[in-house]
This record gives sequence, C-alpha cells and structure tokens, in this order.
Amino acid sequence: MQRVLVDELAHHVGEQITLAGWAHRQRRLSQVTFLILRDRSGLGQVVITDPAQADEVAGFAPETVLTITGDVVASAQAPGGAELHNPEIQVLAAPAEAPPIELWRPSLSMQLPRLLDLAPVALRHPRQRAVFHTSAASIAGFRAALDARGFTEIQTPKIVASATESGANVFALDYFGRPAYLAQSPQFYKQTMVGVFERVYETGPVFRAEPHDTPRHISEYVSLDAELGFITDHRDVMSVARDAVAGMVDEVHVRAAAAVSALEITLPLVPAEIPAIHFADAQHLIASATGERLDEEPDLAPAHERWLGEWALREHNSELLFVTGYPMVKRPFYTHPDPARPEFSNSFDLLFRGLELITGGQRLHRYDDYLAALAARGQAPADYASYLQAFKFGMPPHGGFAIGLERWVARLTGAANIREATLFPRDLTRLAP
Amino acid sequence: MQRVLVDELAHHVGEQITLAGWAHRQRRLSQVTFLILRDRSGLGQVVITDPAQADEVAGFAPETVLTITGDVVASAQAPGGAELHNPEIQVLAAPAEAPPIELWRPSLSMQLPRLLDLAPVALRHPRQRAVFHTSAASIAGFRAALDARGFTEIQTPKIVASATESGANVFALDYFGRPAYLAQSPQFYKQTMVGVFERVYETGPVFRAEPHDTPRHISEYVSLDAELGFITDHRDVMSVARDAVAGMVDEVHVRAAAAVSALEITLPLVPAEIPAIHFADAQHLIASATGERLDEEPDLAPAHERWLGEWALREHNSELLFVTGYPMVKRPFYTHPDPARPEFSNSFDLLFRGLELITGGQRLHRYDDYLAALAARGQAPADYASYLQAFKFGMPPHGGFAIGLERWVARLTGAANIREATLFPRDLTRLAP
Repeated sequence: MQRVLVDELAHHVGEQITLAGWAHRQRRLSQVTFLILRDRSGLGQVVITDPAQADEVAGFAPETVLTITGDVVASAQAPGGAELHNPEIQVLAAPAEAPPIELWRPSLSMQLPRLLDLAPVALRHPRQRAVFHTSAASIAGFRAALDARGFTEIQTPKIVASATESGANVFALDYFGRPAYLAQSPQFYKQTMVGVFERVYETGPVFRAEPHDTPRHISEYVSLDAELGFITDHRDVMSVARDAVAGMVDEVHVRAAAAVSALEITLPLVPAEIPAIHFADAQHLIASATGERLDEEPDLAPAHERWLGEWALREHNSELLFVTGYPMVKRPFYTHPDPARPEFSNSFDLLFRGLELITGGQRLHRYDDYLAALAARGQAPADYASYLQAFKFGMPPHGGFAIGLERWVARLTGAANIREATLFPRDLTRLAP
Repeated sequence: MQRVLVDELAHHVGEQITLAGWAHRQRRLSQVTFLILRDRSGLGQVVITDPAQADEVAGFAPETVLTITGDVVASAQAPGGAELHNPEIQVLAAPAEAPPIELWRPSLSMQLPRLLDLAPVALRHPRQRAVFHTSAASIAGFRAALDARGFTEIQTPKIVASATESGANVFALDYFGRPAYLAQSPQFYKQTMVGVFERVYETGPVFRAEPHDTPRHISEYVSLDAELGFITDHRDVMSVARDAVAGMVDEVHVRAAAAVSALEITLPLVPAEIPAIHFADAQHLIASATGERLDEEPDLAPAHERWLGEWALREHNSELLFVTGYPMVKRPFYTHPDPARPEFSNSFDLLFRGLELITGGQRLHRYDDYLAALAARGQAPADYASYLQAFKFGMPPHGGFAIGLERWVARLTGAANIREATLFPRDLTRLAP
C-alpha cells in the first residue's frame, strides 16, 4: 500500500492508508491510547482502542520505527484534523535502547555541549529540524536569486597551496608530502572566475582555524559567496547582496513555512533599497550619542553594530543596514579604495539585527594595482602568481560578497550560539559527531 | 546607458545600446575592421569603418576589457543576426600583456598540464566555458529532482575525527594539535540525517588522497550524495538515482542549451526504467562472450564495464545500465546483504556509456547488524560511537547513492581526462592554480 505522510492525512479521510515513521510519544488513557508518529512532514495521531494492542504499543521504546496501516478519520482534536483508527502496526526497527533525550518535550532543555554530543538523535526533535529546514530554504533562495540574475554556479578547490587571505587561522595538511592548506574562502577563485563567467556564486565549506571559543566562531562553516564583474562600484554589489537576502527570505517563506511557524520566526522585511550609512558618519553618530572617542578606531565593535542596528530600526524602520566605506587599513589587500577618499574603501558590511551578516565590496581589478598593493604589504607577487594571471590578462571592475549561512540561520531563528545553527559543528575542542 | 548582452543584440535593432566584454578577436580588412566582443552570453560583432578608430583598436591586446556604445543593425552575416555600428569604445582595463593562449581559435590545442597551469585565462575559451555551464546545469538538475521528491539539503562537516570509510587514501591535518582527516564522503552523516529528515542530499567536496596518476582520479571532487529512508530494498534507491540523472539531463537541456550545441553533446535518453542486470549474470554474459574465467572475480574491470555498456546499448537501446548485487566482499561494512543470497549485496552501480557513474545501495539499519559487521572486520565499535548513535536509537531501512560531478561532466562532454571537467583540479602533483 502506498505510504502517506502525516501532513497529508486530512486529504485521505475515509480511506485505508499506510503511515511510516518513528514512535514519537504515547499517551495511555483508560479507554484509549494515542500513539504520536513522527515522519518527515510532522506529527500524526494514531488511535488504539484494543487493550492487547495498547499493551504491545506500551512496550515500544521511543524512536521505534513503525509502519501503520489504518482508516483515516476526521477529528478536530487531532493534529492536522485527521487521525488513524483500527491500526495494524508493524515494527521496522526497534531501538537498542531508549534515547537519552525526551524528543516529545516541546523543547530540549539540556546544556549545549551535551545536545551537540547527542546530535544524531537530538536533531530529530521537531524544533531542531525546523532550524535546518530554514537553513535548506535559505541556501536554495540564495541560489535562486542569483540564477535569476545571470550568475553561474562554480565549484572551487578547498585544498590550496598557500595560506593566502591571511597567514593566520589556517589549517595545514600534508598533501602527498608537501604542505597545503584548507581554503579560508573561495575569494581568489571567485574573482578569477569573473574573468570567465562575469557573475559567479559558490555555496560551500570554508575553514578557519579559529583559536577563539565564543558563541560566534566555528572552524568550518558554509559560505555563500558571489562575485560579479562590470560594476560601477561597490553599490552595484550591494544591490545584488540585497537581492540575495531578499531571495533567501522569500524561499524561507515558501519552503519552510512550517518551520517559521514552529520557531515563531519573524522574517525581516527587505526594503527595495536597504538604508546605508558611511563608516565615518556611523562613527560620528555613535560618538555623539554615547560620548565615546572613536576617531582613532578603524573598525566597529560588536556594541557599535548593535547600536547601529537599533538606530536603523528607529530611523529607517529597517532590520537591515549597510555600513559602507570601512577604512582601508582593516580590509584585505585586494580591496578597492574609494577614489575620492583613498583612506576609505569601496566596501560594505550588511548588519542584520545589529550583527554583521555580510562582508563585501569592490576589488582591485588592474594588474599594476595588485603589484602595488602586495608590495605595500611586503608580499611577493610570485606567491600569488596563479591568482594574478586573472588580472594580468584583463579583468573588469568587479566586486562581491559572502554570507555565513550558519550565522544567518542563527540570527533568524534567535539562536544564541552559532553551533545551534550547525548540524555537526567544529570548534577548538569539538571534532565529533 | 543600460548594458545589453551580445546574445540580446537582435532584440535591439534600430536602438543605441552599450555592450561590455573582452576583445576576443579582430579582423582588419581594407575597408572595415570587425571587432569580436566576448561577454558572458557569447560573441558579438562590432563594425569599425573609421580608419583612425581601426588603428586604435588594432593596438588593443586580446582580452582588453571594453564597453562599446553603438547602433544595432540587423545583419545576416553577424553572429546572432545583428551587429553594432558607429561604436564609441571605452577601455575599462588593459591587460598587462597578451595572454599566452589564442582564445579566438575554435579549440585549444595545447597539452593538458599547460592548459591547467593557465586555467585562469584558458577557462575563458568558449568551449571551456561550455563545459562548466554543463556542470552548473547538472548540479542544479540534481537538486531540483530531489527537492521535488521531498529531500532536504544538508551541509555536513568535511573535517572529521577518524578515517572512517577506509583507512587508506585519506588526508590528515593538524586540528588544534589533534589529528583529524578530510572526509572521503558524507556517508556517515547522510545516513545519520535519514533519522532526522528521512530523505537528504548534499552537494559538496570530498577528498581522496589518491596515489594514482590516471585520467580518472583527482584528489578533490564534488560528490552529489543522496540518502533515503523507508525503502523496501536497493531498487527504491535505484529509482531515485534514475530520477536524479533524468533531472540532471533535463536541466542541461534547459539551462545549458548553448553549451550542448557548442560542444555537440549528445545527451542520453534516460529510460523510465533503466535496464538492470545482476552482477553474477553480467559475469556469465561476459565470460560466455569473451571466454574469460571470471567466477573468482569479485568486481568488474573497466573493460568489463565497457563491454556491458555496449551490450546495454545493443540489447536495451540504453546508454545507462544498472549492475546490481555486487559481492559483499567488495563493498563497505555498512552494505546490506541480499537476504536471499547473502554473499551478494543489495547494492548497485550505474554504468553510463560503459563507465561507472553512480555507486549506491541499501545500508544496514539495525544496531546489532552494525556491531556484527564491525566485529567481522575487527573494528572497535567505540571508533564509530557517534555514527552508531543513529542506529542505536531507531533507523528505518535506507539506502543512497553518490554521483561524481566531474566524472559525469567528463563523460557527457566527451573529455578524455576528468581534469578537463574540473575548474582547478587537484592531483598527486597539482596544487595550483
């Protein structure tokens, strides 16, 4: 018999059908036992009135894998408005023991490290699942937005020859007897590919040997990267970044509506034009409001980002705010300066609810500019020979941005720790599961 | 002025518009110079009749980045049926030198290692671009087919604690002073996630420290992985694998039509049911036809796969053939045996034009079966503790498969070497670009 998902039950009232899933919970009353079955679509209710069958079901450990054939009956009390009567129950797999987590509770209250240790079973909790449904919808929305704008998806190597972006925080490996490194970003490759496809994106893992044990740092995360050519300046990049975020929100609406509801997520409204403030103006504002002396500071502290997030909500009714023109000293060597004020860059961060979500900007595109930028930092062009080929042989003005998927999902779902938005996080001490 | 792509020129006849791209080629005749501009959509023709302007253009190195404003005129001779007259040309970026590759030639004739060394510029060749348009369309088709079938996309870690699938061919790294490894596949994680979402897929890099220098091996590739629960046996997995391949072919049709045409690709017809032959029957057939003694062989040699590819085409008019039931001895420990003939497995390979494209099968799902399988191989369950959680706490019958993206693209585009289907390949000797 064809299997039906529990969230389709109401469409089959009056029919005999088969459900399949996990024994999520049971409630035994005097006359009736309710068995709650969990499948990928949600929770469904099975009604058992036969005392012998109720005894048998009482012996099932939570997470017993079942198929259940029965009659679908409309019921206002049942989840989804229908339930299964007269069940025939078959055990597909019995757990070796009851799980150490009560998955039927509305939320899991244990400490995060223990929750992460038990991820293979903890992730089965409906709230945990909802977080990662949101993640899957977000990455699909990113791709859809860029596909619709003429971007080509690329796949670039994660094993690289040199610790290019910055010497620090890089994982080293033995590559057939030679030193190699895990890529901290696809930056050089996505720029190179602008010379090929003009507009490219990549969704894949990046690796940072972060020595910090904080709620914001993990050592492997999923970076949603885009890069585009033939721009006027960073504002063209900001426009695409805005569209990417809007696409992510749209797809979360469409694909993860149940998760949004279960987690009580408030999705942001993405304005057609996200408000923007220059770094220098932002510093002035913060200094005026707080009395802090910031004129020597080349970056915004987390507290300043939070302040700006509140300001944007108050002044622009927006949960999103671009901060542009970060000082060149704080940006990587490939950053394009602001031609009018060369101490500032044609770069931006996008703050979402007071937290940096996206970093991006215009890049240098002339070969000579790269040679000068590397010389100014005392770096040898020979170490960047492959990368420099792209610029040596003609590159248009271009720029790009990157979104940390887990950071986005954490912010969206209200997770206090980025590890809650990562299936199997990696950090200073955690390498399993 | 709004930029127009060269493949849209014919829609703008009679208008003044702006093109942007790279100086791909020029042909100077006595009265006229034809400048061929390459952008992400293809090649467009610009007609220069002013001798002074022709002189200026003659000084452009190939790959000079230009914007060109002019009048669109219908022309039967021009690519796409229209060309640009009365051009005003602006140089956006001049190459530091002419590239060492003549990108205007119909195909690149240099040796592969040199081509790979020059990838940042060689990939700009229209034929090279077409290969990777095919790749992008294929991966999109894989996702679309599985999205439509209730699968959830997942992102699992590439840094793992143990060299799990097989001890050999694994890259080791220093993880904050501890040993760690690069994942050879997402196998354990995708199985674990069947317990969460029932049906999952992942598209991401996998790493094999392949000590072989062959046209078929690279040490980092993109694996298209799927895994699904509540199956009867491996045939349910084969059905989804068939749909995934059909989805890839469909999306190559839709998204990469120009690439298919440029590369003269013949896309396979994917039968509603791909023919299947049992491993033992396949050996009988080959032995009868060739006189080889194969009864002691637990696997098919590449020559046997080619023979079967020809047989399937001849007997079933199919370029795709499932071989099922490989001997257990050649399959990993998590493989589910054929209950009727336990020396054979509920596994399959999918051959595409005589080459293995997909490996898949049913997995063990009972905790005790895992303990027995590990014991039989002399492995300690403690080394697999995280993975075994999934089975300890209730897993349905499940199975899955993996497709090597580069292998698929190589076979589809007729590339003799998998490196031709990889943007920046990694192998025994190659770590750059």
